[in-house]
Parts: sequence; structure tokens; C-alpha cells
Amino acid sequence: MAGLRNKDHGKVELAILESARREIELNGILGLRVAEVAAGANYSLTQVYRYFGDRDGLLARVLGDIYDEILTTVYESYMSYMESLPVITLDDLVNSLPTPIAPNAMGYQEIRLQILATSVKNVPLRERIENTSRDMHTRWEAGLDYVESKLEPGLRIDRRVFTIMLLVQTMYYRTLLGDVGFTVDEYRAFVREILVLKTDV
Amino acid sequence: MAGLRNKDHGKVELAILESARREIELNGILGLRVAEVAAGANYSLTQVYRYFGDRDGLLARVLGDIYDEILTTVYESYMSYMESLPVITLDDLVNSLPTPIAPNAMGYQEIRLQILATSVKNVPLRERIENTSRDMHTRWEAGLDYVESKLEPGLRIDRRVFTIMLLVQTMYYRTLLGDVGFTVDEYRAFVREILVLKTDV
Repeated sequence: MAGLRNKDHGKVELAILESARREIELNGILGLRVAEVAAGANYSLTQVYRYFGDRDGLLARVLGDIYDEILTTVYESYMSYMESLPVITLDDLVNSLPTPIAPNAMGYQEIRLQILATSVKNVPLRERIENTSRDMHTRWEAGLDYVESKLEPGLRIDRRVFTIMLLVQTMYYRTLLGDVGFTVDEYRAFVREILVLKTDV
Repeated sequence: MAGLRNKDHGKVELAILESARREIELNGILGLRVAEVAAGANYSLTQVYRYFGDRDGLLARVLGDIYDEILTTVYESYMSYMESLPVITLDDLVNSLPTPIAPNAMGYQEIRLQILATSVKNVPLRERIENTSRDMHTRWEAGLDYVESKLEPGLRIDRRVFTIMLLVQTMYYRTLLGDVGFTVDEYRAFVREILVLKTDV
């Protein structure tokens, strides 16, 4: 790559990453073929490998980027809604939970599921999403501090509902149950009850 | 297959399924190649396709079987422990939770994660694990009835901790956080608090 200026280097990389995203939208993550990615970007297979090492390296980069974006979008839209409220009520918190049937949330869930599954055997991807998870953990702690500072008078919340329960939640399991799974109303009622802090800390 | 007796039919099928499992143990689910499965079973690619339709059909069968086995093993070992107790205490329930660091549980989690991710695009696998999920849901309801019937005097539990919180839990998210995630003790303390039913129903 010595012959390429930085600007060209960035251009090639971007074209390959964009092609990889189109391939993933078309055929899913698990079926991604590097040859198709190269063809879609009008570069050779050799060039793709030169930029990203191997298929795992390419996946680590493009899936890592997508994982980042999803977690950032979820956090920022949650916080921008919270910041729009003069005071945050229990209803506000309960109604803004990601619910089992929200179609947007399910799309994200399916992509996250595929990225997580890929990271089990892809070491650079695993390291990347570990870093993202830790960064987002810090951001959520700050976000929850803000939420607590704006709660309606008398309301105190159990943060563990966010930092333990919601943190490890995968609604895909609920989706698999179809009609026999819990309803959105049952879910909200449960979270509402455990969210309100009753004991002294 | 008209020329094969049922016994031979079953033998071929079993050999292919066993080869597929060995391949999965070796290379993971996402990298499974049908040609390797055929070679490992000493059958031709054509024979594998004749028995299982296509790669998706083969995956649906072998991953569906594994998913069944994991969920059945988890349920049966939990229940056989519960059935060994003359009376079930809150400590018994809290200490038998699947914890973030249990190595066995994490192995299962990673396999489940890969099966779930595969089912997003594999329709027969998705249908298979939907059926398994619904069957296990019925078994767990019966299991929880048993647990409730053996609880120590005065203890009443909130079943929603099982049917909502634990149902959708993926500890892999916790694992990604490393040192900044919640500890086993924090997890158990949280579940202990929300598990004890305080309000009248």
C-alpha cells in the first residue's frame, strides 16, 4: 500500500466496507462471501485481503461498526427522549422499554444475535464488541445518573433493572414462544413493579 | 430411497448426523460445510442432499436436535435437584440460578447463540426451535408448580422472575463486559430480592 496516498487508501477501504454492508443486507451475515464483497466494490479479492487480512478481519471491522452503530443509536434515541422531558415519571420509564413486539427492536435483535454468534469464533470481532460493550456501559451509567436526577418527586428506581435485567435481555427468546409467551402488558407490569425502589439503601 | 429398507435408511441418516456433529465441534456451526459432513460419514454429497434436502435442511435437523438436548438437559438437571430436596428454600432457588461465570452454562450459551442466529434465516430450523420453546414452556410451568408446592412455609415466589426475566436472559452480554459487569453476588442479591413475593395477588 506504500504507493497509495492516505486519501486513496481511505477510499478503497470505504468502498469495500460499503460493499460488505450491501452483501450482508442481501444475504445475511452468516452467508457473507468475500469474493462477492470484492466484486461489489470493483476490487480484486487480493485487494480485500490486503486491507482486511482475511474474512474474519473484514467481518470484525464491518460487524464491529454495525454493532457500535446499533448500541449508539439505541442509547442516543433513549437519552434524547429522556432529555426532552421536564420531569421523568414511572410511566415514562415503563413506556419507553424495548418491548417484545416492537418491529424496529426485533430487527436490531436479529442483527445483534448474528454478530454475537459470529464473535464466538472471531477473536478480533470479539475484542471489538467487548470494547464497545464497556464504552456503552460507561455511557449508560452517566445516562442513568441523568435519569435519576430528573425523576418525579418521591420516585426512586432500582438501577439493577437496567444494569442486570435489561443488560442481558434477548427478546428473540420471547418471539420464539409466539402466543404462549408473555404479553407486552405483562412485561411492563413486571418491570414497573421491580423498578420502584421500596427498601432503603 | 425406495430400494433401502427402513433400517438402512436410519443407519445412513444417523451416520450423516453424527458426522455433522463432529464437524460442528471441530469448526463451529457457522463454518459447517456439507462436503466435509459427507466425507466424514463416507457418503456422497448427493446422498446427504437426498436425505436432508439442502444445507439448511441438514442444519435444521442437527441444530434442532442439539437445541432440544440442551434445553432438556437444563430442565431435567434443575428439576432432579429440586426433587431431591425435602423442602425448597429461597437459598436453594438463588444458589441454583445459572450464573454469569459457570463454565458449563457459558458453553451452552455460545452454542445456543449460534443456533438462534442461524434460525434467523433458516425457516425449518426456526420452526423446529419454536416448537421446542413451546414444549419447554409447558414443562417449565409444570416444574414451577412442583417447586411452589415444596417451598418452605411462608415463602411465596414471583414466577415472573422465571417466566419473564430468566426466560429472555443471555449471559453472553455479561461476559463481554469483563471486569466492569455485575458480579455473581450482585446478580444473586438482585434475583433474591425480586423473587420473594411481597404483595398480595
